[in-house]
Amino acid sequence: MNIGIIGLGLIGGSISLGLRKSNFGDKFIGTDSNQENALHAVKLGIVDEIIPLQDLIMQSSVIVLSIPVDGIDKILQNILDKISNNTVILDTGSTKYDICNRILSHPKRSRFVATHPIAGIENSGPISAHSDLFYQKKCIICDSELSAPDAMSVVTKIYSIMKMRMIYMTSKEHDLYIAYISHLPHVVSFALASTVLTKFKNEEKIFNNMMGSGLDSTTRLAKSKPETWLPIFIANRKNMIQAINSYIDHLNKFRNHLINKEFIKIDRYMKKANDIKYKR
Amino acid sequence: MNIGIIGLGLIGGSISLGLRKSNFGDKFIGTDSNQENALHAVKLGIVDEIIPLQDLIMQSSVIVLSIPVDGIDKILQNILDKISNNTVILDTGSTKYDICNRILSHPKRSRFVATHPIAGIENSGPISAHSDLFYQKKCIICDSELSAPDAMSVVTKIYSIMKMRMIYMTSKEHDLYIAYISHLPHVVSFALASTVLTKFKNEEKIFNNMMGSGLDSTTRLAKSKPETWLPIFIANRKNMIQAINSYIDHLNKFRNHLINKEFIKIDRYMKKANDIKYKR
Repeated sequence: MNIGIIGLGLIGGSISLGLRKSNFGDKFIGTDSNQENALHAVKLGIVDEIIPLQDLIMQSSVIVLSIPVDGIDKILQNILDKISNNTVILDTGSTKYDICNRILSHPKRSRFVATHPIAGIENSGPISAHSDLFYQKKCIICDSELSAPDAMSVVTKIYSIMKMRMIYMTSKEHDLYIAYISHLPHVVSFALASTVLTKFKNEEKIFNNMMGSGLDSTTRLAKSKPETWLPIFIANRKNMIQAINSYIDHLNKFRNHLINKEFIKIDRYMKKANDIKYKR
Repeated sequence: MNIGIIGLGLIGGSISLGLRKSNFGDKFIGTDSNQENALHAVKLGIVDEIIPLQDLIMQSSVIVLSIPVDGIDKILQNILDKISNNTVILDTGSTKYDICNRILSHPKRSRFVATHPIAGIENSGPISAHSDLFYQKKCIICDSELSAPDAMSVVTKIYSIMKMRMIYMTSKEHDLYIAYISHLPHVVSFALASTVLTKFKNEEKIFNNMMGSGLDSTTRLAKSKPETWLPIFIANRKNMIQAINSYIDHLNKFRNHLINKEFIKIDRYMKKANDIKYKR
């Protein structure tokens, strides 16, 4: 069984390594629009061979589509047009509604399984890929009733091998929830980095000297790649605007308490936020 | 030489353990308003003995004041009134201006060294203390020209032993800069936790299921203790309001780009924020 990986970055690379480690699949073939990534992926043992996209589509029993969400949206239809009735294709994009909606009435819709393994980190590229990236993390599978049972079974097997826990919901629910759980934290972090970099523009030395662990964790996501994140923000634009507005409301509330010296209210605000401790 | 630790939490406990490890000081005596913490601190070998505050003041050659900043502000004057001309006292509070300003004309001002070891984590209490907490982190020393040379020499030795890098600035500069570097990230994190907890109030299961690494890092600081942070926000209120306002401006800018579909501007915004990668 040939496994075809389209996009040999962090996610595609880690799926490939995870599956190889468990001896799932025979030959791993890959393609990446970035030639350097493609060469690295072969050197790192992520795939056996780099082949052109159209050949990969024809030769793979399972196709993993792990490129930015605008790319997925662009080529998925074309891939479905060409695959056999037995091929299974899954994507790993961070937004799901547009992607699922575009192919809703495609005659081969049932060969596709829409997934989102929640495991991204700020690092990227095949060099960051590792076989345990997904260990004990969550994978959201969307609109699973539109996928064929045999396709679902292959995909759940793939994620089970990598010890992921699967969660099922509609693509619409996914995009709303993930706007708060993942996309908003990225905006929060980009905006914080932007604020402090602006503040210390002319005091770089002081900034480098003072940088401490609090800012490290909150600006970790601000190191993420615009190539990945801009398409996500565009695809999930409406939910994102809602989430950012809600966040600004919460910030304004805190700021106004501070302005009005309503310190008991700030204490209560922090105590409620502390509940995040108990979430997992 | 007796070392007296007032406040046996994460910071005071870690200083004590760090010094003991390097055989700095003979006997370690401590006090904590929380009896349970005090007992724990003895059990964990952080101090040899718990003694009343007034006795600690009289018996210590070096006093480490590591309690919330409102507490420091309240008792520092009283401690200075009582210590000998050879005693060295340092605090570890996260705000410095009010504390330094209050004792500005105290006859024993020079026995005090105002410090801020930047090493707080979201965990607290003596149980979280460890001897390497400060390893290769930064310590800000404020208004050092107001401290006696011998007091400065003791304090820099203490932090050097724990492998901290020292940075010098005025207490006023400290409070402004730290508002952006440390206090703002805490507000950002509290507000984010608050936003997502509110959003998922009635969908707790989905929330627990979806929680991923992006939200983990950005809400880490939201687990911090209100007892520590409310006094900091109060003491640094004006700088905080400025920092939060600036942050809201940066968020609004991002949100407006999204509303107006100015995607090239969002791309540029993220690329600039990516510069945070190169700060240390």
